[in-house]
Amino acid sequence: MKVFIAGFGTVGQGVTEVIASREEFFNKRYGQSIKIVGVMDSSTYVTDSGGLDPLKLVSVKKETGKVGKEKYTDALKILDSVDYDTLIEVSPTDYKTGGQGLKNIIHALETKKDVITTNKGPLAIKFGELIALAKKNKCKLKFEGTVAGAMPIINLCHDNLIGENIQSIRGILNGTCNYILSKMDNGQPFDQALKEAQQLGYAETDPSGDVEGYDSACKVVILANSVFDRNVTLSDVSITGITGITEEAVSLAKSRDMVIRLIGEVGEEKLEVAPRLVPKGHPLAVSGTLNAAQIRSDLAGPITISGRGAGRMETASAVLSDLISVMDDRKE
Amino acid sequence: MKVFIAGFGTVGQGVTEVIASREEFFNKRYGQSIKIVGVMDSSTYVTDSGGLDPLKLVSVKKETGKVGKEKYTDALKILDSVDYDTLIEVSPTDYKTGGQGLKNIIHALETKKDVITTNKGPLAIKFGELIALAKKNKCKLKFEGTVAGAMPIINLCHDNLIGENIQSIRGILNGTCNYILSKMDNGQPFDQALKEAQQLGYAETDPSGDVEGYDSACKVVILANSVFDRNVTLSDVSITGITGITEEAVSLAKSRDMVIRLIGEVGEEKLEVAPRLVPKGHPLAVSGTLNAAQIRSDLAGPITISGRGAGRMETASAVLSDLISVMDDRKE
Repeated sequence: MKVFIAGFGTVGQGVTEVIASREEFFNKRYGQSIKIVGVMDSSTYVTDSGGLDPLKLVSVKKETGKVGKEKYTDALKILDSVDYDTLIEVSPTDYKTGGQGLKNIIHALETKKDVITTNKGPLAIKFGELIALAKKNKCKLKFEGTVAGAMPIINLCHDNLIGENIQSIRGILNGTCNYILSKMDNGQPFDQALKEAQQLGYAETDPSGDVEGYDSACKVVILANSVFDRNVTLSDVSITGITGITEEAVSLAKSRDMVIRLIGEVGEEKLEVAPRLVPKGHPLAVSGTLNAAQIRSDLAGPITISGRGAGRMETASAVLSDLISVMDDRKE
Repeated sequence: MKVFIAGFGTVGQGVTEVIASREEFFNKRYGQSIKIVGVMDSSTYVTDSGGLDPLKLVSVKKETGKVGKEKYTDALKILDSVDYDTLIEVSPTDYKTGGQGLKNIIHALETKKDVITTNKGPLAIKFGELIALAKKNKCKLKFEGTVAGAMPIINLCHDNLIGENIQSIRGILNGTCNYILSKMDNGQPFDQALKEAQQLGYAETDPSGDVEGYDSACKVVILANSVFDRNVTLSDVSITGITGITEEAVSLAKSRDMVIRLIGEVGEEKLEVAPRLVPKGHPLAVSGTLNAAQIRSDLAGPITISGRGAGRMETASAVLSDLISVMDDRKE
């Protein structure tokens, strides 16, 4: 299988390393390896229909800051310049317009390529259109990495729980907020916990996307559309962030053996992000930068999964599971 | 697809109800429904190559205490008396010899039937032989329900995490012990917590299989063999139960913001069941009758899944996921 990787930051490089490290696995399972035939970062590109050396791509990027020697202005022309089967779209996300990532995904689906993406913006904005386009052109659109990094929530619902009637999913979908709230459990005020999260690189200089709940809301939209077959966008979500949570509230919760967590919730009628009281010992009462989600269904009852919501290899692992799913389907 | 259900207690009846409730799902996904062509309980049987009415089977059992009017002495003869594709073996477990369940599974595999089971004993005792027999005869042997009921730990490792190098699995594999330990968290002594678990039906009159750690150890054996490709049996597991845990130990743990949980652990070299200290807020620090397991792998890092470890519909949901997996494979 020939892949094109659009975006060569942390995740793109992680995916490239994973493709190199799993060569034996792919050869054993499919009798073929994965060839990377094209890569682009924000300004340069490199293509080779015979296949590029994955580890060299990463080292060139590290040494020069760029993946290729050639600059480009029209990303879609670069995509068209080489024959590939699957686009791995891992460029930076744009919540407002979908950005270049959205254009890349549409173009790949229009030219009948499978797409794997970790890019939340395009899916939060244009989910229905993208799924319809993929269906029309009989392509796969896979996006495990858009929600909760290493935690296989989407594929779990689509594969293992396919026979269940899923009633709701609620969970901690933003590791930065959970880090801050965990620090507040131990008596730190919000401002100090946020500063610490910024110093550790968990929160950005402008933390509003995380602490105001927008990042969690994007994931709620993706879960609602992909697991519940709804057709919603960000503006349909009722959003409350964590900036209003006081030390007094946390301390009161503690006295009742509870913690406060930012919970995103999708149900038949519900679409919400808000701080909630969670009893200690409950599977959603996890601490630190973890993500967690509880799936309620008619037979299995509540199943909770937790894991790292971000990180180079963690997000690459989600892309790997999507790659395996795409290749399994091609094998049939 | 034609199934034979061996064992018609809580789980067998739950599976039968689930097959009835998913008729539309199976018709939509596979263009066919599942026909139950035979059922036996411990002394009676009923068969019909045209298919039995699932809900009638359950109501007859409830009213008369027996599923069929005919008695049998040789279960294997009954299995041979009707043409079926898949044996669902959900008879009571026997940790020491594997019991009739083991004989049923071997016979079905020898006559080239697929097998789905929730019966721990046969797998804890004869895993290697059963897998080899299934492989030789090109049959499926699926057993999600043997470990942690509704929690899809085995299929998660085999499906979603297939590209990962799994290094270890550790978890709470017995809900009865976890219930007792959760009560002890709140100051109850062991004896009182055990008595309460017995009154609620969580623990049996002879609770040794649970509290001495043997039930957890069976699941450790199944995980070691199925996820780590090892070839071990119950006698290879180092087992310590929870009967020696004192109120003082629990209270000391609490003062350090920890809880004591009975943890089963499988690693490259490890095979152990023992009480462990778990920090509050850790994904394994769940309370009540829940099961939970943490999978460590090279890319995704720790992923923890928790859910109900037992129950009529919960265990039936595990059988349903195995049924879907068997039917998916037949579709290819």
